[in-house]
Amino acid sequence: MIERLDIGTRMSKIVKHHGIVYLCGQVGEGETIADQTRTCLERVDSLLKRAGSSRCHLLQATIWLASMKDFEEMNAVWDAWVPPGFAPARACGEAKLARPELGVEIIVTAVSASGDQI
Amino acid sequence: MIERLDIGTRMSKIVKHHGIVYLCGQVGEGETIADQTRTCLERVDSLLKRAGSSRCHLLQATIWLASMKDFEEMNAVWDAWVPPGFAPARACGEAKLARPELGVEIIVTAVSASGDQI
Amino acid sequence: MIERLDIGTRMSKIVKHHGIVYLCGQVGEGETIADQTRTCLERVDSLLKRAGSSRCHLLQATIWLASMKDFEEMNAVWDAWVPPGFAPARACGEAKLARPELGVEIIVTAVSASGDQI
Repeated sequence: MIERLDIGTRMSKIVKHHGIVYLCGQVGEGETIADQTRTCLERVDSLLKRAGSSRCHLLQATIWLASMKDFEEMNAVWDAWVPPGFAPARACGEAKLARPELGVEIIVTAVSASGDQI
Repeated sequence: MIERLDIGTRMSKIVKHHGIVYLCGQVGEGETIADQTRTCLERVDSLLKRAGSSRCHLLQATIWLASMKDFEEMNAVWDAWVPPGFAPARACGEAKLARPELGVEIIVTAVSASGDQI
Repeated sequence: MIERLDIGTRMSKIVKHHGIVYLCGQVGEGETIADQTRTCLERVDSLLKRAGSSRCHLLQATIWLASMKDFEEMNAVWDAWVPPGFAPARACGEAKLARPELGVEIIVTAVSASGDQI
């Protein structure tokens, strides 16, 4: 009853159970935090779509910033990405990430549209 | 089937789904970690009440401290707040927070009393 | 409808609700990160077993490393521990932990085998 997609040795990119979608922590690419946040959220969109979900079905987001000085730059991209009326619960803290060039990582859980019927 | 309360551009303070309550990360006010923890947990109480839940219905709590030297001071307030017999799963790590004056942030998930029937 | 095991003043080691198992953050023992990760995951195994679950039923894992320089050493133990085909969603960030000798903490949620029928 646990469904996994993009299963690796270390992690699965998507895990679904009883209509809840758990994504592995997503990072982005680019020189700026804005670019990294944008590409990170594009990956979140893509994974959510594959899981039968969307950014309108988020429950919770945890955001890690390598440096809190990037808080406003990340938020500008985040705020524009969240559909009005559909914002998830959120927390943001400072944590260095797996590689020094990474400035932001976003971890989300969401509801699967198909899973809603379970 | 996702219910949100206090919906903002960036986050919703409360998200409910299938009887589970997700709160956005809560911070407090005050000069000391004890004061910040106390006011933070008052806000958690208030949000849980609005969500039809309470501190007796916590599932999981994640605590971020800006400095781990405040571990004992935070814990003294936390331990007194947790109803005997109802302690959630918990983890506590060090993470700088959104503003430099913030020393503690607490992220909880809980069960909604009304949601229990779902 | 919330079941708790090893209930303390501060936290419960296991919280179960509607077939989902929430473990409190686990740490290990030893001089090296490899040893700490190994003993940490032995504790996770033990708690999951008591909860009617196993490392084949993980949904999500959050890993905190006191120093990201230990990323590969932790991963070598983690990768060998994860059963092929059963990897959870995962995120790993740097966070100092409750005591200075602690190098790794792992927080997992899983499905209870018995809970699957709910």
